[in-house]
Amino acid sequence: MRTSILAVGTELLFGQTVNTNAAFLSDKLNHMGFDVMYHFVVGDNPDRLREKLAEAFSDTDLVLLTGGLGPTQDDLTKEIVADFMGAELYRDEKVIEDLKAFFERHGRQMSENNIKQAYLPVGCTPLYNASGTAPGFALEKDGKIAICFPGPPREMKWLWENGAKQYLEGFMEKKMFYRVIRTIGRGESDLEMDLMPLIDGQTDPTIATYAKEGECTLRVASQRDTMEEAEKAVEEMIARIEGIAGEYIYSYDDEELNEVVVRLLKEKGLTISAAESCTGGKFAAAITDVAGASEVIQYSYVTYSCQAKTDMVGVPAEMIEEFSVVSPEVAEAMAAGARAASGADIGIAITGYAGPEADPGREAGEAYIGYAYGDKTGAVEVRTSRNFRKWNRNYFVLRMLRTVYKLIK
Amino acid sequence: MRTSILAVGTELLFGQTVNTNAAFLSDKLNHMGFDVMYHFVVGDNPDRLREKLAEAFSDTDLVLLTGGLGPTQDDLTKEIVADFMGAELYRDEKVIEDLKAFFERHGRQMSENNIKQAYLPVGCTPLYNASGTAPGFALEKDGKIAICFPGPPREMKWLWENGAKQYLEGFMEKKMFYRVIRTIGRGESDLEMDLMPLIDGQTDPTIATYAKEGECTLRVASQRDTMEEAEKAVEEMIARIEGIAGEYIYSYDDEELNEVVVRLLKEKGLTISAAESCTGGKFAAAITDVAGASEVIQYSYVTYSCQAKTDMVGVPAEMIEEFSVVSPEVAEAMAAGARAASGADIGIAITGYAGPEADPGREAGEAYIGYAYGDKTGAVEVRTSRNFRKWNRNYFVLRMLRTVYKLIK
Repeated sequence: MRTSILAVGTELLFGQTVNTNAAFLSDKLNHMGFDVMYHFVVGDNPDRLREKLAEAFSDTDLVLLTGGLGPTQDDLTKEIVADFMGAELYRDEKVIEDLKAFFERHGRQMSENNIKQAYLPVGCTPLYNASGTAPGFALEKDGKIAICFPGPPREMKWLWENGAKQYLEGFMEKKMFYRVIRTIGRGESDLEMDLMPLIDGQTDPTIATYAKEGECTLRVASQRDTMEEAEKAVEEMIARIEGIAGEYIYSYDDEELNEVVVRLLKEKGLTISAAESCTGGKFAAAITDVAGASEVIQYSYVTYSCQAKTDMVGVPAEMIEEFSVVSPEVAEAMAAGARAASGADIGIAITGYAGPEADPGREAGEAYIGYAYGDKTGAVEVRTSRNFRKWNRNYFVLRMLRTVYKLIK
Repeated sequence: MRTSILAVGTELLFGQTVNTNAAFLSDKLNHMGFDVMYHFVVGDNPDRLREKLAEAFSDTDLVLLTGGLGPTQDDLTKEIVADFMGAELYRDEKVIEDLKAFFERHGRQMSENNIKQAYLPVGCTPLYNASGTAPGFALEKDGKIAICFPGPPREMKWLWENGAKQYLEGFMEKKMFYRVIRTIGRGESDLEMDLMPLIDGQTDPTIATYAKEGECTLRVASQRDTMEEAEKAVEEMIARIEGIAGEYIYSYDDEELNEVVVRLLKEKGLTISAAESCTGGKFAAAITDVAGASEVIQYSYVTYSCQAKTDMVGVPAEMIEEFSVVSPEVAEAMAAGARAASGADIGIAITGYAGPEADPGREAGEAYIGYAYGDKTGAVEVRTSRNFRKWNRNYFVLRMLRTVYKLIK
């Protein structure tokens, strides 16, 4: 089905807010087999909103709208859409109850203007909102469908997962199943080459690759008459992909690498400690970003100078002298030292050049990741040959996470 | 001038890429006094691109396009725009030279298809691109202006700063001067209330406030006949703002707080060390995100358990027992301990609940920031009353940075 996404909100036209809603919905819609043809953004202006709505429907049959469903006077999306599709508004008592409960939960008095949110188009499919106050809705007329979401990304996503997605599945002739495989350690073009025999001339399941900072994501999707067939086709294809690129895969359901690592550490009852030079705390931050990380990390070290590497994790000054501070030897010693100093099961460490500066004769993007787990100790080399400090630091952390992942998997 | 932004790229419609270019350009255009009315996104499809270009020009006089300027066959923006505005293409020798130099610099052979990028519309103002291979251009006809940028944000921004901005300034009757003031520690609505006497009925300079994770940014802008007048008006208004909200201001030219703090530490020749519990390394990461941070930080501690607080930064177990681990006393002891253990001039520390979990009778969002600098030691309380772990952790780091900023300023 040809689809448009129409975002309503002056803050988007001011550049104060990035339209991440359009990207989220486009991704989801494409996964389901809908063709997203256009994104539009208009301000909180009834005439221009009506105009763009007409434009969107002139060339596409499904229009997803975000924003403008709130209680204030400039929230007009619902009224415009209802009027455009020739529907009256009715007062939805379920929404009234939800609103009362919401304000009670938050110990706040409900102001009168909130009642505005309880009016929905006659004949719509309400999308009741347990993540905020403004409900969404889907409205169909003469084969044209409008689905309205509140603007806050958290609420929009909640309504997508808890109503909109299920509503749209009703319009798919075939059943769609897909899994998102995340990989690290091989570039997109290389991975595409590896998988070319599978991708080439492949109609179903489809394999889509896309690159994301130092990672590459594969989406394997199948549309069949039954969900069972689609799922079977996807799993068979994944098995073939594993045969070719298994070593680069770290997650199968779009789970972040730090979440995967923390989950595995918990499952195995292991603790970890890091000695970080060029990442300066970003690895520990990535681990502690995951709720419940206290089970797996208690002590971690930012050793940003040579002296700190000696004082905090016992790297001999002579070793730094002999091999240089950015070396596999020092990385390994840092990891062993972090493990010893913390008493953790696993020590992980990094020393390298994030850039823009590097020592004479060395290049930004060169780093060594040390590890120490049981009798497995060593170091791996990383070279990004990039001089974007931020990019390098993020990539270094991903490679540290991957090193841990491979150690304990 | 009424303005549209038209992004070209199928990756945007797939949701693989977020349209940050539109937000960047909208922000810049609004700062210059242009009215951004619409954002459009289309795929790499000539007919739909032409159609949306016509739509954009039907209601706005200035259209900024991003993407589709590359060397490949599906890069069609330039050809469509030139044709739409009735301009032939010519081969720009300067671009040829730039391309040759670019590929030499990168030690790569220039493939033939790159020559495509050297063709520009007759009568355009070329925007030569020193940050990549594809040049942009501005083309005016009958009072309608199209400006084309390459899609990669880094290149788009470079061309904005080094050509497009200057080109558009030529269309401003009045001269515009503005400064972006960044504040932390007071919510947007409160700050707006504080400044209401200045904002209310204020036509020039204008004061725009917008909230950003835990911060609030003020843009003070003036349009006058001369740049001198505009600058004078802005500086006078800023002086009045300082009188009301000076204590919350940390930067005047959109500089990030971690950059400000590292710059100040360098200027004063001070070093810092952190003991982090709930931020788990994010503070150290924020400091080391800034190039050259090794001058100001060498040792930092992630003390994620009670035992780690005792072992790494010498917080007495009895103190934790007596006051609880999330307490001003423990925060202050952590800071003093980090300073003592590291020998840094400043110790900073945090202990708190990032969420979703908190100890019985305590709430996520509660934290204490300890500091130790010279004879100044103490702790400040932070309460976000939010239960979004990521948000809390980011905000905690901002408050730690602000605490350091106030200590040393």
